[in-house]
Amino acid sequence: MLEQCSKNIEKLRNKCPLTHCITNYVTINDCANVVLAIGGSPAMANEAPEIEEFVEAAGVTIINMGTLLEDQIEPMQIAACHTKKTNTPLVLDPVAVGVSKLRNDITIDLINKSSVDVIRGNMSEIKAIANLFNITDEKSVAKGVDVSSDDIITKDNIKSNASLVKAVADKLNTTIAVSGAIDIISDGVSIYLIDNGEEVMSKITGSGCMLTCVIGSFCAITSPLEAAIIGSLSMAISGELARRKMEINNEGSGSFRTYLIDMMYNMNDETIMKYGKLYKLE
Amino acid sequence: MLEQCSKNIEKLRNKCPLTHCITNYVTINDCANVVLAIGGSPAMANEAPEIEEFVEAAGVTIINMGTLLEDQIEPMQIAACHTKKTNTPLVLDPVAVGVSKLRNDITIDLINKSSVDVIRGNMSEIKAIANLFNITDEKSVAKGVDVSSDDIITKDNIKSNASLVKAVADKLNTTIAVSGAIDIISDGVSIYLIDNGEEVMSKITGSGCMLTCVIGSFCAITSPLEAAIIGSLSMAISGELARRKMEINNEGSGSFRTYLIDMMYNMNDETIMKYGKLYKLE
Amino acid sequence: MLEQCSKNIEKLRNKCPLTHCITNYVTINDCANVVLAIGGSPAMANEAPEIEEFVEAAGVTIINMGTLLEDQIEPMQIAACHTKKTNTPLVLDPVAVGVSKLRNDITIDLINKSSVDVIRGNMSEIKAIANLFNITDEKSVAKGVDVSSDDIITKDNIKSNASLVKAVADKLNTTIAVSGAIDIISDGVSIYLIDNGEEVMSKITGSGCMLTCVIGSFCAITSPLEAAIIGSLSMAISGELARRKMEINNEGSGSFRTYLIDMMYNMNDETIMKYGKLYKLE
Repeated sequence: MLEQCSKNIEKLRNKCPLTHCITNYVTINDCANVVLAIGGSPAMANEAPEIEEFVEAAGVTIINMGTLLEDQIEPMQIAACHTKKTNTPLVLDPVAVGVSKLRNDITIDLINKSSVDVIRGNMSEIKAIANLFNITDEKSVAKGVDVSSDDIITKDNIKSNASLVKAVADKLNTTIAVSGAIDIISDGVSIYLIDNGEEVMSKITGSGCMLTCVIGSFCAITSPLEAAIIGSLSMAISGELARRKMEINNEGSGSFRTYLIDMMYNMNDETIMKYGKLYKLE
Repeated sequence: MLEQCSKNIEKLRNKCPLTHCITNYVTINDCANVVLAIGGSPAMANEAPEIEEFVEAAGVTIINMGTLLEDQIEPMQIAACHTKKTNTPLVLDPVAVGVSKLRNDITIDLINKSSVDVIRGNMSEIKAIANLFNITDEKSVAKGVDVSSDDIITKDNIKSNASLVKAVADKLNTTIAVSGAIDIISDGVSIYLIDNGEEVMSKITGSGCMLTCVIGSFCAITSPLEAAIIGSLSMAISGELARRKMEINNEGSGSFRTYLIDMMYNMNDETIMKYGKLYKLE
Repeated sequence: MLEQCSKNIEKLRNKCPLTHCITNYVTINDCANVVLAIGGSPAMANEAPEIEEFVEAAGVTIINMGTLLEDQIEPMQIAACHTKKTNTPLVLDPVAVGVSKLRNDITIDLINKSSVDVIRGNMSEIKAIANLFNITDEKSVAKGVDVSSDDIITKDNIKSNASLVKAVADKLNTTIAVSGAIDIISDGVSIYLIDNGEEVMSKITGSGCMLTCVIGSFCAITSPLEAAIIGSLSMAISGELARRKMEINNEGSGSFRTYLIDMMYNMNDETIMKYGKLYKLE
């Protein structure tokens, strides 16, 4: 699976799919740059009157719920419906779902309206979705956009978390990609783990948003499961290499952020094969 | 005071307070990254329907008036009221107050509605506030977001400027932090000066906005006066170290910006004690 | 012409004109930073109630159509009218015109309402404008914000493209600056080419938006034709030097982006004279 997934990088760079991102304005610049670095062509259009035209032109649409100003919600709803109608791959990043009623309502609405291919979130967000769709009774206690300390994925809780992720993927008929110290990816049938996580990734804003867009680009050229795996591997390995360089140079999170994009720009199948720690759990 | 303030950095990193920023979308990404670098947990939520929930969850709320689109003003007003009601620390950055009627009206409204803990601005902005609240007759002549050349703080005008800053802090019952070549900080009783300013700080966008958010994070764990001092010291010293590295490497403002975040990421009490030039004027 | 244009850099740094940018929030931070790096003073005000005040205070106004949310369109229209009324230089970046009906309608409206000094775009966008104003029948087929592969400027199509650019400039009584592998600039009388293009420029977001703002800053201190030439030369040469450094250091697009700003920060007339490849075609 590692080798099979790694082939998608060259394929992406050759096809350079139009990657349509409806995303928050906190990290929108980072998202555009990382899509360019990995080989996609980003279009950050989120104006209601032109959403349908962009969905039709794009190889994939990504909805990131980071900011939910009134005029950002309607475009998300239009995109959710129109990707389903046009059979365009859709990736959803339900940022901070579980933290406010507004976010819960919109998450449910977007999932119900669409046929979402991949949902990418941290463990708190996926637990919140499990809760909203009655898949678990366990409550998540996240307060902001970051994962709650109770929900951090560790060797001890990996099995129960992985089972929940699989159950959500199965129930919603989608692929779930959870990023964390260990990434969990499931299409409702198989479960894969990626053990290349770096703590410093949580010390820059947008690492999650960027990952979602990268997975999105890959969705335009391969299956949701492969897209989630190769997207997560690319970002995690880039993070690992960037952290090493940062430490060798005695630098900090500013340089790390620059190197992360550098590593994505230079990512290829060899690097994936050399550093990727992909395990099949089920 | 220098030593006492410097202890707050470790405290901040341990507590990692949720730092709720309602801020402009020009520098919002920089603001989130600098809060992460110094040890806070940023939440950039500015949607009216969820402002109260975020104020309640956060250790501090920051209002930056950089962009004032219609749907950004209401959230600021809600936050101003709700921080007062819930006794949540509030930090205000009245960007470009004095430049347009809109900005003057909103500044007055937000100050009147709230119980603001720290106001952070450049000397032109603080003079404009002094004018709006009838503390001085002197007019500021700033045209944009940058300090007017007439208002740049120098050794010659430092005393009169410091007196005005103290008078504003006293009248509005708050702490004022003025950033410039020399920083002036007053809680209406004491006046402190910081002499670590770097000119290149004005050659990147967002240095002021970032400082405001950093002061905000510190407000969640210490007094407004200490927060203003340690926040200003951290940023000013990081700027000094980043400028040195930029010059040694023969680089420019792009690298400076990256190094500034690096230095904040590595900031600690020892560096504050070694480089901090803090003086008590009164 | 190369020497004459190169003198404008020092002039810009001395005058430091207020550069008023109404621009998209994808690359707004990059735009502010590049204006600061080259020597202008950016003001990113785009709130309808204060647009007229900023147009009056500024040395130039720039309208970038990258994002067209409802509350961003009215400020553009106000600025288009008010720059004409106050004789303030206006630079337009018609991002993705030709891709959606919304963008076509707004482009026509803004050009008709104003007296635009420079239009900066890629070849697909300029072809779309030529089409909208009945200057050509040739259709552009761009799908996103990037130039269509059919419209990339090469040695083979440079003459026909240059003729079209000149015709558009003549018809609209403006200066057109087309950026690409080879830049084409025409005021409707002369045609200039710049052969310093770098492919990696298209691997970061915002290189076009930044160029537009830089040309804008120069418009505040010199003629539209000279502004378009020196702005394009500065960015293209900075891109060339940044790419070299990136390759020597074995880095990627993240570092390239940082170095691009560094090079703009250090740009001067000597560097322009040494590296500038400016040719007069007609």
